[in-house]
Amino acid sequence: MIQLPGLIDPHVHMREPGGEHKEDWDSGTAAALAGGFTLVLAMPNTKPPVTDAASLELALSAARGKARCDYAQFLGAGPDNANAAAALAGRAAGLKMYLDQTYGPLRLDDMTLWMQHFERWPAEMPIVAHAESRSMAAVLLLAQLFDRPVHIAHVSLREEILLIRKAKERGLKVTCEVAPHHLLPPSPYFAEMGRGQGEGQNQIPPPVSSPIFSENGGGLGRGRGGRLEVRPRLNTPEDRQALWEALDVIDCFATDHAPHTLAEKDGPNPPPGFPGLETTLPLLLSAVHAGRLTLDDIILRCHTNPRRIFNLPEQPDTWIEIDADAEWTIRAANSFTRCGWTPYEGMTVRGRVERVVLRGKEAYRDGKVTAEPGTGRNVKAF
Amino acid sequence: MIQLPGLIDPHVHMREPGGEHKEDWDSGTAAALAGGFTLVLAMPNTKPPVTDAASLELALSAARGKARCDYAQFLGAGPDNANAAAALAGRAAGLKMYLDQTYGPLRLDDMTLWMQHFERWPAEMPIVAHAESRSMAAVLLLAQLFDRPVHIAHVSLREEILLIRKAKERGLKVTCEVAPHHLLPPSPYFAEMGRGQGEGQNQIPPPVSSPIFSENGGGLGRGRGGRLEVRPRLNTPEDRQALWEALDVIDCFATDHAPHTLAEKDGPNPPPGFPGLETTLPLLLSAVHAGRLTLDDIILRCHTNPRRIFNLPEQPDTWIEIDADAEWTIRAANSFTRCGWTPYEGMTVRGRVERVVLRGKEAYRDGKVTAEPGTGRNVKAF
Repeated sequence: MIQLPGLIDPHVHMREPGGEHKEDWDSGTAAALAGGFTLVLAMPNTKPPVTDAASLELALSAARGKARCDYAQFLGAGPDNANAAAALAGRAAGLKMYLDQTYGPLRLDDMTLWMQHFERWPAEMPIVAHAESRSMAAVLLLAQLFDRPVHIAHVSLREEILLIRKAKERGLKVTCEVAPHHLLPPSPYFAEMGRGQGEGQNQIPPPVSSPIFSENGGGLGRGRGGRLEVRPRLNTPEDRQALWEALDVIDCFATDHAPHTLAEKDGPNPPPGFPGLETTLPLLLSAVHAGRLTLDDIILRCHTNPRRIFNLPEQPDTWIEIDADAEWTIRAANSFTRCGWTPYEGMTVRGRVERVVLRGKEAYRDGKVTAEPGTGRNVKAF
Repeated sequence: MIQLPGLIDPHVHMREPGGEHKEDWDSGTAAALAGGFTLVLAMPNTKPPVTDAASLELALSAARGKARCDYAQFLGAGPDNANAAAALAGRAAGLKMYLDQTYGPLRLDDMTLWMQHFERWPAEMPIVAHAESRSMAAVLLLAQLFDRPVHIAHVSLREEILLIRKAKERGLKVTCEVAPHHLLPPSPYFAEMGRGQGEGQNQIPPPVSSPIFSENGGGLGRGRGGRLEVRPRLNTPEDRQALWEALDVIDCFATDHAPHTLAEKDGPNPPPGFPGLETTLPLLLSAVHAGRLTLDDIILRCHTNPRRIFNLPEQPDTWIEIDADAEWTIRAANSFTRCGWTPYEGMTVRGRVERVVLRGKEAYRDGKVTAEPGTGRNVKAF
């Protein structure tokens, strides 16, 4: 049994308020604990989005009653809330700017709106940008012009990581995260299933032992459609190789846990996103087994760096225990997320969370979440 | 009669080689002289594009035989010519990077290709970017990361000019130009004609006296389709107002002279671009009459600044003479460009070029181009 610090996930979608049929603060934080995360930072693209004092309180009151692990809530940057968001900065995980296509109504197209937020958001407080490709380069420029640090969410492309490396070399205040599905994509089996238009597309596939570390990434290309819909899109083998080669540039691994129901994913207009809280650490531990990562790489990117970047307090007497050798098969049926599926269904992985202790109290053990709803704390409630 | 220095246009499309049915170095430089320009910088999106020694020689040999005014030729940044272009830098007006939709095959999508050019192009030599909106912000970032100056072509949007202002305030090495049609758009009469699908769309419209300085810009919005196709698109009244208010941020006026025939413009897939060499100065002089510009504003942006930005030699004994009060009506029938039309057809303007003297010799007088083909010099032929 190996002990690790409680993991921190800087990028989860709890779906509450407004999307409780696929996740809420109860089921989502249960999934977090089962995945080894003791602290999660929740994104603001809920219904309504979290953009002002009233909507922040709506999200936080749900969390207060239901959360089983610790948390903080992001504010969303909208077209007319630059002052309101700045005034709430101390109560939030940070400011989230949606600058490219995503799920929900928050998106800032005009760069003069970006400028307003960069100008007014308190210096040194976290700003996270969903900004792909040249939008990412653009937001790096603005961050620098306004002398603000910026954290780039879910980097997926070769050009992005190479540009971030260059920016770091030149001293820009930029950090970044990568999601597991852009490093270790779902199996080709799933890829085929996700594209299926005919019968059986709602069925859970049978077990497969998937070559998740194959160099060609199972031939997924940049996947589109069906269950494979995700933003940023599944990347190419060249992109993944560039990310692995730039591991030193990657500050955090973030699940981008984005649950939708299978009915939604298999419907005519599938929303983008995968659940990820319960599969990320097992996938990363499998990569350790494959010799592509070390445990220290994981601790740095799932604990030390997110804590520093988002200025998060220590969680005393908090740790997780893992069996690094346990081989098991991912099954949505055994998971806690409400969405009821996973793109990694049937994949055999090595490494399992056995026990989680949160602030001195056992929160998860042997497949059971023992922390009660409402025992999680808002780490930004000072 | 007022004497001005010979104007410099940093952005013209001569169409030779490959598009001589709509313009060549003869007709294009005749149009330049008629418009008061004694030195033009030619863009590289010809057929073939100017990207290496052979294609550069193709363009320059045509210019040597035909040009009536002085000139230099840009090199185009392609996906695999970063070294070749850099080796030719001294013989070129600069490096042109096409980063957004344009006419011709030159476009760099992947930012790692931008990085190659920024890395290898000689420091302090001119780089011009066709980069709109967030692409513009992205190229500003790259220019800074690689410590290169960058000149932004045909700025058209409010967000662009406000971001350039901010970048200049922060000391970034950025300059920019604005095309006349983004400050003083074609008349609403033309706008309607340009959209026409039925009869008469090939006809030249009758004279109109157009409210080119009306605050609402004739209700053009961001024009699309037909003869109005241009990149960047015709902007909104709000964009134009922002450009006028940021006159101090605009380093150059550039015609973006981009001739296509009426058959092409009225065809099923109209290429983007307007002719501009012969209408730009009269439009600017009309703006002087309207109290929106001074003659010094024009000299600064059509002579002093382009000369400095592109490191151009002095043209000795060179000047133009204008009648600032002459009122006349723009007519494609009286113009020298081969394309045979103008979006400003029938517009009454004030201010006319009467005479041009190039290196001590009369080159244009009273509607006649007197400079012979082949008398123009390549100012980058050292």
